[in-house]
Amino acid sequence: MTRTQVVIIGGGFGGLTAARSLRQAEVILIDRTNHHLFQPLLYQVATAALSPSDIAWPLRTLFRSHPNVRVLMDDVVSIDRAARMVHLRENTPITFDVLIAAPGSRHAYLGHDEWESFAPGLKTMTDAIQVREQMLLTFENAERRRLVTGVRDRPLTFVIVGGGPTGVELAGALAEIGRKAMGPDFPALRLENLSILLVEAGSRLLPGFDAKLSAKAAGALARMGVKIKLNSPVSTIHADGVMIGQEWVASTNIIWAAGNRAAPLLSTLSAPQDSYGRVKVRPDLTIPDDSSIFVIGDAAHCVGNDGKPLPGLAPVAMQQGHYVAHLINDDIDPDRRQPFAYTDRGMLATIGRAQAVAQFGWLHVSGLFAWLLWCVVHIFFLIGFRNRFRVMSEWVWYYLTFKPGARLLFERPSSPRNSPSTDHGHERGIKDRTQD
Amino acid sequence: MTRTQVVIIGGGFGGLTAARSLRQAEVILIDRTNHHLFQPLLYQVATAALSPSDIAWPLRTLFRSHPNVRVLMDDVVSIDRAARMVHLRENTPITFDVLIAAPGSRHAYLGHDEWESFAPGLKTMTDAIQVREQMLLTFENAERRRLVTGVRDRPLTFVIVGGGPTGVELAGALAEIGRKAMGPDFPALRLENLSILLVEAGSRLLPGFDAKLSAKAAGALARMGVKIKLNSPVSTIHADGVMIGQEWVASTNIIWAAGNRAAPLLSTLSAPQDSYGRVKVRPDLTIPDDSSIFVIGDAAHCVGNDGKPLPGLAPVAMQQGHYVAHLINDDIDPDRRQPFAYTDRGMLATIGRAQAVAQFGWLHVSGLFAWLLWCVVHIFFLIGFRNRFRVMSEWVWYYLTFKPGARLLFERPSSPRNSPSTDHGHERGIKDRTQD
Repeated sequence: MTRTQVVIIGGGFGGLTAARSLRQAEVILIDRTNHHLFQPLLYQVATAALSPSDIAWPLRTLFRSHPNVRVLMDDVVSIDRAARMVHLRENTPITFDVLIAAPGSRHAYLGHDEWESFAPGLKTMTDAIQVREQMLLTFENAERRRLVTGVRDRPLTFVIVGGGPTGVELAGALAEIGRKAMGPDFPALRLENLSILLVEAGSRLLPGFDAKLSAKAAGALARMGVKIKLNSPVSTIHADGVMIGQEWVASTNIIWAAGNRAAPLLSTLSAPQDSYGRVKVRPDLTIPDDSSIFVIGDAAHCVGNDGKPLPGLAPVAMQQGHYVAHLINDDIDPDRRQPFAYTDRGMLATIGRAQAVAQFGWLHVSGLFAWLLWCVVHIFFLIGFRNRFRVMSEWVWYYLTFKPGARLLFERPSSPRNSPSTDHGHERGIKDRTQD
Repeated sequence: MTRTQVVIIGGGFGGLTAARSLRQAEVILIDRTNHHLFQPLLYQVATAALSPSDIAWPLRTLFRSHPNVRVLMDDVVSIDRAARMVHLRENTPITFDVLIAAPGSRHAYLGHDEWESFAPGLKTMTDAIQVREQMLLTFENAERRRLVTGVRDRPLTFVIVGGGPTGVELAGALAEIGRKAMGPDFPALRLENLSILLVEAGSRLLPGFDAKLSAKAAGALARMGVKIKLNSPVSTIHADGVMIGQEWVASTNIIWAAGNRAAPLLSTLSAPQDSYGRVKVRPDLTIPDDSSIFVIGDAAHCVGNDGKPLPGLAPVAMQQGHYVAHLINDDIDPDRRQPFAYTDRGMLATIGRAQAVAQFGWLHVSGLFAWLLWCVVHIFFLIGFRNRFRVMSEWVWYYLTFKPGARLLFERPSSPRNSPSTDHGHERGIKDRTQD
């Protein structure tokens, strides 16, 4: 008996859950990296509170006890529905009986792709490391100028575009690290010299949450010194600043948290897509005319009970992955499939130390209690005991000391590699033995 | 009263110890990175056992309670003795009354700088991350070829050039991670397919240690499956292999641990240097004709009691940093300075889990006891409680599970950044909220 060959594109929350739930099928899980990324905590890597390996876990290790799942690190370039195969960048194509596309989304610039180089987004580990390096270098450069010239610098302005959870969490984390952790380390940075601006085109922060919680979040951020601009669409971004409505704000630290677009790969499916590039799936998460091609996670436009598309949340993706795996495990005929139904278990966003907002059905909470809930939920969902343990100890340490641990700059971007003549080597410190 | 202005070049073991020990002087510590690197554990980052932030610590945080020390992240381009100033890459020059040069050393290729691109060395964090990525990609590529073509790959050969402590530690760590951690994750890699070759030009491993301990180390490595070639100088290195004596060994994973050269910056001092580029210092660690310019650490050629130059060990650098700070603190006249005397507290090298060699004066030990000593000493010297705690928990975890935690590949090097058209984004998994 030949077993069903299932190809899963993407090792995020949806793809990972599907792969883990598939029992009999022969599964090939394709991801461009070698790890599952716990994206909800990516902003903590960007603000140097956590290390990359705290929120990422090698996919192969996660599937050690799943002999039916093979992991392949590669880029899927296109999907050929007729031939039932996916084309890869580095390999010959791979055929499938069933396809689960969970390629996720990427930040998008409202048609202004040229903004990306001035205002990086925050979707991948590479993004987070880039944001972290830029932030740390900004502090280092300000300190260097003061040390050499003797004058305090012009204000450092960080601009975060987008008042959703990522923007709110980034603004809160930056305010904390800037004032409490960087302050003692960089004497040039006094409180009044650091400015964090959170810009939102809509009328309130956290539009997915209840309006009262939005107000609580805005109040908490304001008390931490974050300036909030609502109803303020960004009209242009340059290397040295951003135009917000009619106002020009000078800043070399702009972070984009304002828009997403589903993976371009999806267009090769030739299925209907919405304006965000998400594939409009049927109630069983398949594409029209093909009951063995599923699209899940935030690559899918899946209509919920309220008639609106489900939000791009990790729980949605995980429930969808589980649902699809169940259909495949039990080999359920297309016409006998129950529609996918999302069980909303609530939403959380953290603002800073001991500050968060949470919404569980009728229960809306904020402040310390919401923050503790946030910690518990995130620790609980971190995959693998080891990361849970590390992240928890990291948070306890940071809570007690305000010394975030992941503030490393390896080399300045201007330093050429492999260039011994300009390589003065004085960062190496003392090597440990001479005979190496 | 004007305070003495001391400039320290390099935040390694020597420079850091000097800066911490200086009491009254106004100190500027210049380093090309923003952190102190615990270089003896760098090979553990290269083999994915530890994360970068486990063995590095921001210099600014280390000096929070030292108001007389300012940290400057920059490259020193040259030293101008006549003008008493150092020239920086990014800033105007800085003047000094006293200079402590601790710029360290860099791996050197015996006059064959062109080998560097095929056989990276291991001196900086960037080096370690490069070695780690290359190792992980080799495993991923082997697995990908088997998955797609169905045939097992040709053997994977890792070649380590240099049988000193770094070479021995790398070989042992690679043997362990390859066979025990990677084995279960990469079904294509069977034991007989992985080959680790340690090449040494001299007649034994660990030439700095007692000959019996060298033999113990060689025996332990051989039992772990490492092939050792002694009396085998490398005559050429290409992208696809290495010529060892008359034998060609095909390998795309060659790591260089065979030679060092002191920082090129030192030549601008116009002081006598030895053939490794180290400055020949006087007994008080100053350069000839200038009693307020010190050179310490493995940038210095400092003759020990046995008439030979002191080895480039962390304890030597730390004792030298302490000695120089004492001379400055007490403002001791050049003609009243006691010569620097190194107190040898022993040497350690680890081979693998529960395998090490140690030499403390007459006490020579190997095996589990030496390994436990090694763990205690390295944990003890790690700067900052937090890193100690993290590294210890990391080691305990690895010891129990053989699941090293830092095996992350973010993007394949061939993937262009900022190129949305080829950016299929499917590694992003499921983003956590839609309204970001």
